[in-house]
Amino acid sequence: MSRVVKLAVIPGDGIGPEVIAEAEKVLDAATAGSGIRLEKTRFALGAGRFLETGDTLTDADLDAIKDHDAVLLGAVGGVPGDPRLKDANIERGLLLKLRFELDHYVNLRPSKLFEGAPGPLAEPGDIDFVVVREGTEGPYVGNGGSIRRGTPQEVANETSVNTAFGVERVVRYAFDLAERRRRKLTLVHKTNVLVNAGGLWQRIVNEVAAEHPEVAVDYLHVDAATIFLVTNPSRFDVIVTDNLFGDILTDLAGAVTGGIGLAASGNINPDGAFPSMFEPVHGSAPDIAGQQKADPTAAILSVALLLDHLGLRDESDAVTRAVEADIADRGAASRPTAQIGDAIVARLRA
Amino acid sequence: MSRVVKLAVIPGDGIGPEVIAEAEKVLDAATAGSGIRLEKTRFALGAGRFLETGDTLTDADLDAIKDHDAVLLGAVGGVPGDPRLKDANIERGLLLKLRFELDHYVNLRPSKLFEGAPGPLAEPGDIDFVVVREGTEGPYVGNGGSIRRGTPQEVANETSVNTAFGVERVVRYAFDLAERRRRKLTLVHKTNVLVNAGGLWQRIVNEVAAEHPEVAVDYLHVDAATIFLVTNPSRFDVIVTDNLFGDILTDLAGAVTGGIGLAASGNINPDGAFPSMFEPVHGSAPDIAGQQKADPTAAILSVALLLDHLGLRDESDAVTRAVEADIADRGAASRPTAQIGDAIVARLRA
Ligand SMILES: CC(C)[C@H](C(=O)O)[C@@H](O)C(=O)O
Ligand SMILES: CC(C)[C@H](C(=O)O)[C@@H](O)C(=O)O
Repeated sequence: MSRVVKLAVIPGDGIGPEVIAEAEKVLDAATAGSGIRLEKTRFALGAGRFLETGDTLTDADLDAIKDHDAVLLGAVGGVPGDPRLKDANIERGLLLKLRFELDHYVNLRPSKLFEGAPGPLAEPGDIDFVVVREGTEGPYVGNGGSIRRGTPQEVANETSVNTAFGVERVVRYAFDLAERRRRKLTLVHKTNVLVNAGGLWQRIVNEVAAEHPEVAVDYLHVDAATIFLVTNPSRFDVIVTDNLFGDILTDLAGAVTGGIGLAASGNINPDGAFPSMFEPVHGSAPDIAGQQKADPTAAILSVALLLDHLGLRDESDAVTRAVEADIADRGAASRPTAQIGDAIVARLRA
Repeated sequence: MSRVVKLAVIPGDGIGPEVIAEAEKVLDAATAGSGIRLEKTRFALGAGRFLETGDTLTDADLDAIKDHDAVLLGAVGGVPGDPRLKDANIERGLLLKLRFELDHYVNLRPSKLFEGAPGPLAEPGDIDFVVVREGTEGPYVGNGGSIRRGTPQEVANETSVNTAFGVERVVRYAFDLAERRRRKLTLVHKTNVLVNAGGLWQRIVNEVAAEHPEVAVDYLHVDAATIFLVTNPSRFDVIVTDNLFGDILTDLAGAVTGGIGLAASGNINPDGAFPSMFEPVHGSAPDIAGQQKADPTAAILSVALLLDHLGLRDESDAVTRAVEADIADRGAASRPTAQIGDAIVARLRA
């Protein structure tokens, strides 16, 4: 008797389809014989779809996606500066809309320096931390506006909205994660300037910390956190932070651990009310699309996060180990996208 | 006949007084025989003053400071977590208040990797750029608030305010600076998410760019900018960005170019309506205060920025060259704060 998992696949734009093709190969290989039967639905969404139909994400799309157990997404976004996309905001209208509508309040972004991975730091040390980025609040809520647009009197505002409800649930998730890891949690914010939002985050972390006496808690301003990410990244275990700071820190963390081509993420709804969504941190990179130049590793590691989320711990570990072995053997030569996927599948099967 | 320069000196808290003592030695040596007569006024401001008197920055303080040609500041801020400072916000009430009241709309932060400076990057390349950080708008305006504080229904907002007036003047400054440098300007923002503020910045950069056809202009999202700061920092010449992104990028840039102990800054009012203020980027580091452990180099390089601002180009260059020579000879051994200042003074005199 096999368990059916309904997976929505959104290859997206640019290099998205290429890396997702490899991620699917790995997913299929990892679940073969596991008692899981994958039922995949492909959704053609992204800049390409917008240019064809004028739609970004319809209510019907959203309803159909909700009717799945999980989502695997490649990357979305057209060629920067494309005049036909001037009035579309694929990021806000598609990617962020999915994160908000599917209540992905945990944006989980592990950073690990795999053996053999190239990194920019002279002495990186042992890097292995996870950023728990809030996904449904902060400066990402779209509560901004402008008046007198295009005149010398224009005023443009952006409002960051933060709620006790929203902060507490992600902070609790981060503490639970820290309990299963090295029991160290760092709150990153800018409490000395953003006193209202920062005060809320700090108070809630203090409150939840009282329930987790074994977890060592510290605090860093976001500016100082970027310093430590390049001078002493091994000091981190779990970082919990807001939507915007998490965006910034995880790109930097990706760079420090061998590049954004290796950085995976999960947009998670821990309550299970909506499907969680797994995607590489990188973008659609239209400049190298269709050339088999993209590294599918980040998408493949996102599959490992997906498997873990589905409770398939062994399958997840197997994928991570296969990736680790591949990275360790890489050297400097670059391989076509499909060759990297095939090599990882071969290791999985071995 | 000598020109009188009235300088307000705010040593501040923690290591502030120690690094300012060295900065003053260098300033005195650099201006000796230059036809400049310095008239210094010391202002005891900071956490220490607050604990003694309950005042952070009075109107009288502010008026007195305004009656100067420039300000030299060490660092302000008490011991983190000091319960007596719980209701004081020295950063907002003193440092940011000075920047806002003195209309320091250009926060100038050069990043240069000096020969011999220790840095975390394996292959740093030739790093020499300047961040022009907006200083009087953005998320720093203090336009936030919260309701139902301390309850499960708390909502805490922070509003970033951006005006065409405020953005244009700093963007113009950045283009003028780029004209005198390598003619490359990068706007850093998050236009795909903060569409209102980002749209304003992007439009104004486009407009001013049309008046500077020789300046090559590009754009990076703030998350991508942090990647380039560690993978290819030599790609940057002038970065122009908002108050918060500038805060984050310049700490990271400081780390990449040998540490925050070398990072200088000027809070500039280019109109000359108010005195400009020069300060190291680092904080008050109370944990190492009074031990002669602090590196005064950032404060001394801030003196070079101050001299340049006063039109004393030769004196400014002489200080920078003396610092460069000192850094080149440093090696790994650490020297007491005063010894570093003395060594730089000796080179200046030589
Ligand atoms: C594309 C963009 C909206 C997105 C974000 O800012 O969250 C991306 O940078 C990311 O980190 O997933
Ligand atoms: C102390 C703090 C308010 C300040 C800032 O955020 O601007 C500091 O980090 C800086 O960069 O000068």
